Order: sequence, then C-alpha cells, then structure tokens
Amino acid sequence: MNERDFKYALQCYKERVDKFLGHYLESLTAIPKTLKDSMEYSLMAGGKRIRPILCIVCYELFTDSIKEILPFACALELIHTYSLIHDDLPAMDDDDFRRGKPTNHKVFGDGIAILAGDALLTDSIRLMLSCNLNKELISKAMEEIIDAVGPRGMVGGQVIDLELTGKNDCSLDELRHMHLLKTGRFIESACVCGAILANSPDSQINNIRKYGKMIGLAFQIADDILDIEGDEKIMGKPSYSDIEKGKCTYPTLLGIEESKRLGWECVNEAISAISIFKSPQAEFLKAVATYIMTRTK
Amino acid sequence: MNERDFKYALQCYKERVDKFLGHYLESLTAIPKTLKDSMEYSLMAGGKRIRPILCIVCYELFTDSIKEILPFACALELIHTYSLIHDDLPAMDDDDFRRGKPTNHKVFGDGIAILAGDALLTDSIRLMLSCNLNKELISKAMEEIIDAVGPRGMVGGQVIDLELTGKNDCSLDELRHMHLLKTGRFIESACVCGAILANSPDSQINNIRKYGKMIGLAFQIADDILDIEGDEKIMGKPSYSDIEKGKCTYPTLLGIEESKRLGWECVNEAISAISIFKSPQAEFLKAVATYIMTRTK
Repeated sequence: MNERDFKYALQCYKERVDKFLGHYLESLTAIPKTLKDSMEYSLMAGGKRIRPILCIVCYELFTDSIKEILPFACALELIHTYSLIHDDLPAMDDDDFRRGKPTNHKVFGDGIAILAGDALLTDSIRLMLSCNLNKELISKAMEEIIDAVGPRGMVGGQVIDLELTGKNDCSLDELRHMHLLKTGRFIESACVCGAILANSPDSQINNIRKYGKMIGLAFQIADDILDIEGDEKIMGKPSYSDIEKGKCTYPTLLGIEESKRLGWECVNEAISAISIFKSPQAEFLKAVATYIMTRTK
Repeated sequence: MNERDFKYALQCYKERVDKFLGHYLESLTAIPKTLKDSMEYSLMAGGKRIRPILCIVCYELFTDSIKEILPFACALELIHTYSLIHDDLPAMDDDDFRRGKPTNHKVFGDGIAILAGDALLTDSIRLMLSCNLNKELISKAMEEIIDAVGPRGMVGGQVIDLELTGKNDCSLDELRHMHLLKTGRFIESACVCGAILANSPDSQINNIRKYGKMIGLAFQIADDILDIEGDEKIMGKPSYSDIEKGKCTYPTLLGIEESKRLGWECVNEAISAISIFKSPQAEFLKAVATYIMTRTK
C-alpha cells in the first residue's frame, strides 16, 4: 500500500471514529455540564485514534461491515483518554501540555480531571456492552481488554513508571516490562478484540496478537525517540520532557541508532506475523506498523 | 426478624463477602506490590459490605444458592472502595481519616491512591465478567450498575457535590438530586442486579427497585444525621466534618427531627415495596431497611 492510499484510509477510519465519539458526547445530556465539558475537552483534543482503528481493521479482516464494532472500538479511545488525563495529574507525571493544549487538570482543576477520567473509564464499559454483537463474544473481548488496562496491565505499568521515574537508572528488562504493561498490552488487545468480536479462529487470533504485541513495542520505542528528535510544534509538548523528568527511555539506555534498529525489528516482526492475510485491510495493518516508526507526533 | 437473628445473618453474609474479597486479593500475584498493598489497605479497612449483601440477598429471594453471584456482588465493593479512595483525595473532599484509619492517599500518596482506585474500578469489571451465570443476564446487570456509577450516576453526583461544597446553601431538591446520583442509584442498582441475575420477572424487579431507591435515600439521610449525632470513636472520623466543609446536609436544611421523620418514611416505603415477598430473605431485607436508620456507623 503506497503512502498516499494509506494516509487516505487512515483519515477515513479516523473520521468514522471521530463521528461516533461526537455522537457519544451529544448523547450525554443528563450529566453535569462541567463534567461533560471536561470529558469532551480531552476526548476531542486531536488524538490519533490508533487503538480504535486497529480494533476496527482487525475486525474487518474477517467481516464486511464495521458498523457493529464501532461502540466497542470507540470505547477504547475513552479508556485511552482517561489514562492520559490521570497520567498528566500533578500527583503523577505532572504535565502542563498535551497535544499543544493545556492538560485537563490545568483547565478544569484536579478534582474534575480525576472525575472526568473515572467517568470515561466507566462509560467505556457502557459502550462495550451496547454493541449489537453476540454477548459471549463481547464478554470474551471485554475480558481481554480489561485485563490489559487493569492492575495486571496499564495501571500496573503506570505504578512501575512512577516508581522508576527520577531514579535515572533501570535495566532494559525493567523498561521493557514497564512499557509492555503500560502501553503494549493495550495496543495488543485492541487488535485482538477486533479478531475476537469477528469470531475468528484461535490460530488467527494468535497471529494478530503477535502483530499487536510487536507494534505496541515499536510504538513506545518511537515515542521515546520522538521525545528527543520530535518537533515541539508538531508534538504539542516540549522535547526531552521524559528525560528531564528522570524517566528511563530506550535512547538513554541504548542510544538513538540502536533504538531505531530495535524499533524497525519490531515493525518487521509485526508485518511477518500477519503475512498469512492478503486483503487490503491486511495491507493497511502492515502500513500501520511502518507508520508507527515514521510518524512525527 | 428479631435484632439478634438479623445481626447474626448480617455477620454471616459479611463473612462470605470478606472471604471472597480475601481470595480475590490473594489472586493478584502479578501486580506491583505497592499497588496491591494500596488496594488491599482500603478494600479490607472494615467496610460494612452493604452493597454486596443487598445484591446477594435480592438474588437469594429467587434462588437457593448464592455461590454464583459472589463475584458480581463483591465487584460492587471494589467499585464502592474506588469511589471512597478518589473522594477522599485532597483535590476532592480532602479527608485524612476514614473508618478510624488514615485515608489511602495519606499512606500511599496521591498518585498511588488514584491508581489504586483506577485498578479497583477496572478489576470490578473483570470480576463481574467472571460470573458463572448466563451472559445475557450478566450483560443486563452490568448495564444497570455501570449506568448507576458512571457520569449519569455516582461520578456525576460527586461533581455536583464538589460544586455545592462550600456554598453553604442549596435547595432540598438539589440536595436530593445530588444524593440520588452519588449514593442512591448505586444502592438501588445493587439490589436490582441481584434480581436481574436471578432472572426474576420485570414486575418483581420493579418492587426491588423501589425498595433499593428508598433505602438509598434513607442511607444518606442517616449518614447526615450520624455526622452530627454519631460517636467519633465508633465512626472513625470527626463529627460535623461534612458541615465544617460547608456541605449541605439534611439536618442543616430540615433540622434533626424532620430529617429523622423523613428517613423513617423512606424505611417504611422500602418495607412496603417488598411486602409481596414472604421468605426469610425478604424479612432480612426489611430488617436492613430499619438497620440503615438505626446504625451507629
């Protein structure tokens, strides 16, 4: 898939997700205005929608229509947004800017920011449950995602991150484990949920899991590289912000060149894991793997 | 049901819940120690387990065994505990003590406290999904509870509470609406979920909903009265702590006597709503309604 076709397809999927999220926000009529404003502020702050898109396309590998999976896929963006709001709090990473805008707590205060995160996490479950798909499959997919974002996954990873921050020292194994929990498992399970909800066979779910695991790893390596090489204006946050906080990153441990080599190794393994699939959707997923290492924000 | 039999039955149910929660905590092996310690600290801090017990007994109205519903019922205690941890944070109610012990953030810091809350909320979903019951029923019960604790329920109520606090002035309607969202809907849906999971007919679910709504209201009125009349040693927190924060309460709006009259009116309506049920479990539920107004903590 050439870059122009990929960017166009990516934009189309993103628009579907944005439109669904817009409808979701419109449906929130009976909630306090401050809460809705705070949820909307972060949910519509220009995210790339990578997790919902991965979920949708992995579903589309096995089906013709994507309409049924939209609530589930978009629920992943609610979870991602909740995690960003809480991570940015002064009690955690203490970030003032994200995507070029003041962080949620800078605008709404810490209390409302915590509650907006809580509301998004809780409502993500409501969206998942609302899917017009087989209840057994929804339940299986929810088990997958909940394990990935709970204490054994994302939340656990954030605790390890808090504990490692400021030490300026960790092993490659510790760094890999932390990122696997904090970012990797979520991206992996976004892909896997698409395949589960399409009722695809276990052997193919395993291929998709391998793909998701590898792009999850590449995603974090690329993030660490962008923290150094990224353009502040495009990123919407200051360069070296992770390193200045005393966070361990791939470039600080391995150097930039070795980090890039490792990132591309993951991309190639991801592409190879789904080589059995031949559809345009499979080509799109392969292009996503490359995009993850070449993106500028 | 006489008081001695009621207290004994209450203790038996509480022990079942505590035992299940103990097993749940033991099963958390692959998570960071700090996170587990923080979750355990608040989950095992001596809660009354009212929500799980209500859920169990409303299920038992229609069934012989309670084993299958334990994961779902205990998940409600995880949700309740998460909400207490977040509510106690300096950015919210800023409480130093709960149940006679320092609050979670006082022991573990704000960052870990926020994450322990996030972990408990997320894991509550895992517990609900793990129930060995019909997936359609689980899904319906989850929809009920998630609506009650999300932005249209508990989280929304906490936002309104934050906005009203310090104003020292609100109408009875505002107070009632805030408590309905913050406490009432959750207690109501704990009861309703028991009936849903037992696959009971809609007409009977409606009776139980009415019962839950009325005890939810009585519960909050009793809480407000305890804030004034409660024994600090038994309560484990200072008297007048709500009023000193400038919170609106039933006694400040209506006076103690009128608040008690209103509370007992709710108790009687609750008892009357389930008068069609004649089993020992129904008698227990009626005794719970009375207990809610007579409890000392």
